[in-house]
Amino acid sequence: MRENYVRPLDIKRGRVDLSHGGGGRAMAQLISELFGRAFDNDYLRQGDDGAVLPAPGPGERLVMATDAHVVSPLFFPGGDIGSLAVHGTINDVAVMGARPLYLAASFILEEGFPLADLARIVASMAGAAKAAGVPVVTGDTKVVEQGHGDGVFITTTGVGALPEGRHLSGANARPGDAVLVSGTLGDHGMAIMAQRESLAFDSEIRSDSAALHELAAVACAAAPGLRLLRDATRGGLAATLNEIAHQSGVGVMLDEAAIPIAPQVAAACEFLGLDPLNIANEGKLIAICPQPEAEALLAALRGHPLGARAALIGQVVEDANHFVQMKTAFGGRRMVDWLSGEQLPRIC
Amino acid sequence: MRENYVRPLDIKRGRVDLSHGGGGRAMAQLISELFGRAFDNDYLRQGDDGAVLPAPGPGERLVMATDAHVVSPLFFPGGDIGSLAVHGTINDVAVMGARPLYLAASFILEEGFPLADLARIVASMAGAAKAAGVPVVTGDTKVVEQGHGDGVFITTTGVGALPEGRHLSGANARPGDAVLVSGTLGDHGMAIMAQRESLAFDSEIRSDSAALHELAAVACAAAPGLRLLRDATRGGLAATLNEIAHQSGVGVMLDEAAIPIAPQVAAACEFLGLDPLNIANEGKLIAICPQPEAEALLAALRGHPLGARAALIGQVVEDANHFVQMKTAFGGRRMVDWLSGEQLPRIC
Repeated sequence: MRENYVRPLDIKRGRVDLSHGGGGRAMAQLISELFGRAFDNDYLRQGDDGAVLPAPGPGERLVMATDAHVVSPLFFPGGDIGSLAVHGTINDVAVMGARPLYLAASFILEEGFPLADLARIVASMAGAAKAAGVPVVTGDTKVVEQGHGDGVFITTTGVGALPEGRHLSGANARPGDAVLVSGTLGDHGMAIMAQRESLAFDSEIRSDSAALHELAAVACAAAPGLRLLRDATRGGLAATLNEIAHQSGVGVMLDEAAIPIAPQVAAACEFLGLDPLNIANEGKLIAICPQPEAEALLAALRGHPLGARAALIGQVVEDANHFVQMKTAFGGRRMVDWLSGEQLPRIC
Repeated sequence: MRENYVRPLDIKRGRVDLSHGGGGRAMAQLISELFGRAFDNDYLRQGDDGAVLPAPGPGERLVMATDAHVVSPLFFPGGDIGSLAVHGTINDVAVMGARPLYLAASFILEEGFPLADLARIVASMAGAAKAAGVPVVTGDTKVVEQGHGDGVFITTTGVGALPEGRHLSGANARPGDAVLVSGTLGDHGMAIMAQRESLAFDSEIRSDSAALHELAAVACAAAPGLRLLRDATRGGLAATLNEIAHQSGVGVMLDEAAIPIAPQVAAACEFLGLDPLNIANEGKLIAICPQPEAEALLAALRGHPLGARAALIGQVVEDANHFVQMKTAFGGRRMVDWLSGEQLPRIC
């Protein structure tokens, strides 16, 4: 019966309709002709309600992370919602110190969404998953009526394997530890902002969206005493460090002059009155390690293409108030607070 | 800093706003006061980007399944989007023959959604997870602007452990096998339909939404040669059996008189011109096993509260066309086709 499709999907001119979420032939066709072809792998080809997968090795634990992606616009310089959904969840698994193994993907499509755009997003997602070596092994598709969604939302869930004895956590930072970042801050958020507001700057700002699991593995190998890794997404460096300060019961003192920020991002932030430390990143690690391991970690990060602009940006300090502060370029000090919300909704 | 909330969330009268998805203090407060309290467990309390979890036992494989839930209305007789999101994904893991271990949950909230409704949904979800013994170990929250979502969408992803040597798949059915169902068909879909259309029938139709992992384990134990289990969700029994016929390269012959349908569902279907075999279920297993094991399987299903009305409804036959057919109550035969789409969009 499934073979009796009247005709193949018209991916060039077709649109998502409610039948594509209905559990019948139209959904089977969408899954087979659009999703199945792009994500093709042995696990997905099992075609059952769930995927059967090899478990982690002996002594390894599981890591599980999930992220809904609602970024707007769907396409932006340096990526799109598809590649972002792959990178974001791989990174959430990777910052736990785990080797990402598998991804699950669920799509909430709005009726009327062009199949061509969906195919472009799915191709980008499949490309990102393949490049990262982390297959999309199972998925789901739902369709909502026009006006009850926004094109496409994608939730990805990742599972990884955590080696025996490794324990990275936001609660591990200790006074005296070094704080490093793997590159320039604010690129993703400002790329979205520029695209959304049709702002033109001298040079295009591109999202830094990238899969960080290799860089995370490099960091784990270079600094055996590594306390924690984090990716500074929503809320940027400021929110992430404030969370860590709270979890670990410490303070953080940053050195403004050491924090890498691309000139065009700095200019755009100044123009818009934004602080780059509050802006989301999708391809940057924050790493905290014991001071004696900082130089080795910095060198290792810089030796990887995604960490070429890594920098030592501050240290963990004792502070009963759990404040994150910064020595400014002018020799003063200021608080690096986290905001109540986000200046840029739907950044990821 | 995180401690400096001006005041607790006003769950009675408050509403979701964009700051609740922004990665800052408002989001931390929502997560801690609403999600954290309801789902409270050791894994979630780790408070990191992902959860660190014990892996399956030696020789076991992983099973992974994901489902987006967009059901409308959000609350219906017999459940709500929260309990449905837990049951649906547990069932996708369970029908693979696996023991569900962990759930991840991601929420896409629409700006303006009442916090009281969200709290009610999350409480229901937490209750369903607790009753099933499958904790929600990690999660994510995003907020979209009013008019770009529909209250709340929930994607759940489940991970389970599959015992060595067990292999259930839609591709396993063989001619001569028995086809069983664990109870009455169409209850979930008709409960949603009645609620949505404000239809009043003599007796209320309640969703059959339930976690089926215990019943699935009973089935695996009773029929060592069990070919496959499926939950007949979107598209109902008809779509599920057509998929299996296609996957296995077989036909199916059903016996109409043997198929259990609650009288009020049968009446509602007749009134609305719907076929109960196309209507979604959220608490029913379809099981296919070798004929010699059918009686033992039927008895085992009937011995569990969720399988009390289990029935042997037909058999797998040779058919090069992969047709699903039915001997009607009047002695004739008819095709049990699967629809192109779904008569009832947003059923789950």
